[in-house]
Amino acid sequence: MMMKTLVALLLVATIAATAHASGEEEYEIFPLQLNSGAASEDATLQGITCSSWRLAVEVHNIIEWSTVPAECENYIGHYMQIPKYRQDSKAVNREAYLWVRTVPLPRDGRNIWIFDIGETTLSNLPYYSQNGFGVHKFNSTLFDAWVEKGVAPVLPETLKLYNKLLNLGIKIVFLTGRTVSQTDVTVENLKRAGYHTWEKLILKDPKEYSGKTALEYKSAERVKLEKQGYRIIGNTGDQWSDILGPAAGRRTFKVPNPMYYIS
Amino acid sequence: MMMKTLVALLLVATIAATAHASGEEEYEIFPLQLNSGAASEDATLQGITCSSWRLAVEVHNIIEWSTVPAECENYIGHYMQIPKYRQDSKAVNREAYLWVRTVPLPRDGRNIWIFDIGETTLSNLPYYSQNGFGVHKFNSTLFDAWVEKGVAPVLPETLKLYNKLLNLGIKIVFLTGRTVSQTDVTVENLKRAGYHTWEKLILKDPKEYSGKTALEYKSAERVKLEKQGYRIIGNTGDQWSDILGPAAGRRTFKVPNPMYYIS
Repeated sequence: MMMKTLVALLLVATIAATAHASGEEEYEIFPLQLNSGAASEDATLQGITCSSWRLAVEVHNIIEWSTVPAECENYIGHYMQIPKYRQDSKAVNREAYLWVRTVPLPRDGRNIWIFDIGETTLSNLPYYSQNGFGVHKFNSTLFDAWVEKGVAPVLPETLKLYNKLLNLGIKIVFLTGRTVSQTDVTVENLKRAGYHTWEKLILKDPKEYSGKTALEYKSAERVKLEKQGYRIIGNTGDQWSDILGPAAGRRTFKVPNPMYYIS
Repeated sequence: MMMKTLVALLLVATIAATAHASGEEEYEIFPLQLNSGAASEDATLQGITCSSWRLAVEVHNIIEWSTVPAECENYIGHYMQIPKYRQDSKAVNREAYLWVRTVPLPRDGRNIWIFDIGETTLSNLPYYSQNGFGVHKFNSTLFDAWVEKGVAPVLPETLKLYNKLLNLGIKIVFLTGRTVSQTDVTVENLKRAGYHTWEKLILKDPKEYSGKTALEYKSAERVKLEKQGYRIIGNTGDQWSDILGPAAGRRTFKVPNPMYYIS
């Protein structure tokens, strides 16, 4: 079992290195230094297996949860590191492309695709691998310090879709819960990860959206985009709050994330 | 591998027999007679594994698909027969109960919970196990002949939730795509499976809903229920068309079904 995990880890490291073809330097955090997450067994919490918990989370049956159940730390850690997480992401991004290439698009420059950032275009896995894979209560100070390093690795299956969308003439809008004060580091991180162009990068203004949920913030920003004349063709996020609500997009896509939940 | 599958099959047969505690006779179709579905390997279709395909289907990323990819017949067949399918169903139904028992309910007799029937309260697995687990194109003649036998087995995790809801004083409404001509056999089948009481059993009137999707039919019937004064607390289905649209319910729950898709 340990051997298998080691192989998987090396594999992840290889994938990360390969995907980051354009960068000069290696991300310091790959391969992951693990405090946990090395076991693959499907533990059980009160009669529910962790794999069934994960499915119920992805399908939005289990909602508004605050942390990954402690029993599932190793299971979730393992899932995030083996090829399965990437395969699950690939299935979603591939479906998005199979669909969008069949959609007749007016050639008026108004077609956009919205991407969330964390766990959608960039991975916070190096941070979460040091923090219990979502088992620990969210610590905004620690997390912001990680974000401000600007070294979040690319999620390569999303980057593939991004490039294909650009080739189809669809413009990219990043819509993130990161705050406006993190604009520079986000721009830098996106470019380092291989996202070199976009129509808009929308970060959260904490004053404008004080006390609002992510769902409210993102919906309001999408409505603004439509009022500006944009046509939201597709919308990809790792959270249901990215893809529910008004002006969600002609089709929405949820990439996997069993580590945290944002309302 | 064959031995493992055999053990799994015996397990399914045992579960079915145990769950159907109140019936005098065994369902003729358990244990399943298999034409396929005995292999557990996670095959690949065009770079996507069948387990990633199944996740994308459950999350509603892959939509409007007509049949299970042929490459995935064995994978899906295996999934449906091992405890995992039941565990996934349990996680959803348990979450529904954990939530609903915290909801303050006016004691006015107007609280209802909507259940779909096929793959939600009763299982068509004996039929699908003989028909490629969703790989074959849907054949309404053959399927109706199966429904009219009236022997679809219980889905035991849903029955547990059903009984708990009744104990909480919530009334049950079954809302199904089965047609009104199948009323008698449906009543008989529900009772044989352990569902002994309900407020309403709504079957589809093919004249009223000619040319309408399941989503339109079910939404329209739910709106009628609310106009009649009912309060839809929860709504459980195996299809997204059961739980999207107006008057969906205060919370919705999707139980797994990787065998077919209904718009």
